[in-house]
Amino acid sequence: MIVSGFHPVREVLDKRPRAVEVLLVQRGRKDARAAGIEELARAAGVSVRLVAREELDRIAGRAHNGVAARVAERAYDDVEACLAGPKGGRCVLFLDEVADPGNLGSVLRTAAAAGAAVVITERHSAGLTEAVAKTAAGALERVRVGRVVNAARFLARAKEAGFWIYGAAMEGESLWEVDISGDAVLCLGSEGAGLRRLTKETCDRLISIPMVSGAGSLNVSVAAGVLLYEWARRRAGPGSNDGMKMA
Amino acid sequence: MIVSGFHPVREVLDKRPRAVEVLLVQRGRKDARAAGIEELARAAGVSVRLVAREELDRIAGRAHNGVAARVAERAYDDVEACLAGPKGGRCVLFLDEVADPGNLGSVLRTAAAAGAAVVITERHSAGLTEAVAKTAAGALERVRVGRVVNAARFLARAKEAGFWIYGAAMEGESLWEVDISGDAVLCLGSEGAGLRRLTKETCDRLISIPMVSGAGSLNVSVAAGVLLYEWARRRAGPGSNDGMKMA
Repeated sequence: MIVSGFHPVREVLDKRPRAVEVLLVQRGRKDARAAGIEELARAAGVSVRLVAREELDRIAGRAHNGVAARVAERAYDDVEACLAGPKGGRCVLFLDEVADPGNLGSVLRTAAAAGAAVVITERHSAGLTEAVAKTAAGALERVRVGRVVNAARFLARAKEAGFWIYGAAMEGESLWEVDISGDAVLCLGSEGAGLRRLTKETCDRLISIPMVSGAGSLNVSVAAGVLLYEWARRRAGPGSNDGMKMA
Repeated sequence: MIVSGFHPVREVLDKRPRAVEVLLVQRGRKDARAAGIEELARAAGVSVRLVAREELDRIAGRAHNGVAARVAERAYDDVEACLAGPKGGRCVLFLDEVADPGNLGSVLRTAAAAGAAVVITERHSAGLTEAVAKTAAGALERVRVGRVVNAARFLARAKEAGFWIYGAAMEGESLWEVDISGDAVLCLGSEGAGLRRLTKETCDRLISIPMVSGAGSLNVSVAAGVLLYEWARRRAGPGSNDGMKMA
């Protein structure tokens, strides 16, 4: 896949230099940031190819800042790796058939910021495509992402590993009334359909994001942000600000 | 502008029937929801036109569910209307030159859900276009949206009206350490540039969303969601769940 733009390209060169097949730099580009990226690539033994602006536009779309990289598709992490971490400080966001790549990318950014892993379903989900990488703005390289065939089986395994399973559903208790701190899997469904019945039944508790009556609903990536930050806030504890400095 | 899809069309017929110039329904469409919308339009005295599917695709794109409406552009609300409301329960999200229509649309949904008004800058901002209406999924009709030329002057006026001004900035105090309840203007800049210097200087306090170190940043609509829901949670108070039932 193609990764483009200063930040995403630097990120992949930093985190997975061996996955970078080639760095493409716009010919004649003179700015310091592009030069820095080129240097980073050479230091990592990545081959660099100068290409005309038109070719780079064609390969990487318009918003490339003069740099792009051809990168091997990121592999999914093992589910056990997604569940790993210090007891009491683990959080996994489970996306139950969320198909929109823009939403997945934005969720990955938020998960990286809040210190959570992400698990998606194999069917009816956006995969780790270029569009996702672009929206994720580098976060794709920093977040553990697992993929499962069977949601209920995954959630059962997470319970076994000591997690509590919270499902987002309109009929759930208010997020502000439920203590979602501790090891938590937060389950979120697609905007249209919500969580599937079986997923919902596997949850320990259903929670809902309070809303002004008649207000409709939240975008799924915003809902994920509200849930993840409520978890992170409770984890950090009142008056504490070092919870987010650990990772 | 064209509004399409069951939910957005129903919303505009409910909230601003006089702004609807014509309702377009796909010829031969037989489902109950489309019929319900047609009935709603006729009851409101809105003219209904049956069109072929191909024509509707052309006018409204693909995801129209068989219904679309031609609607007069929504006017901006007066700034004073955005600052109005019960003392101690007012919240305004101020977007300082946020240019992406998708982000603005998503922010409007969240503001509707959290009970906040939105104020945008006249320059370098997305306006209330069709793309915004689409992403806002009906919220455009429910949220007060003001537009200002001079950010500092608007913030000064808000202070005069009893608001505290909080600006989101990397160098700010942790969101979890600052009590942002009460009448608040929450200021958010664009993803690239953040708040402009003058806007920042006008803020009473700068706050930041805690993040795992090296995690980059949040999408602006997710950041808005985290801020607005932190405000709403504090407003509702610990153990209280009726704060969101008021509106």
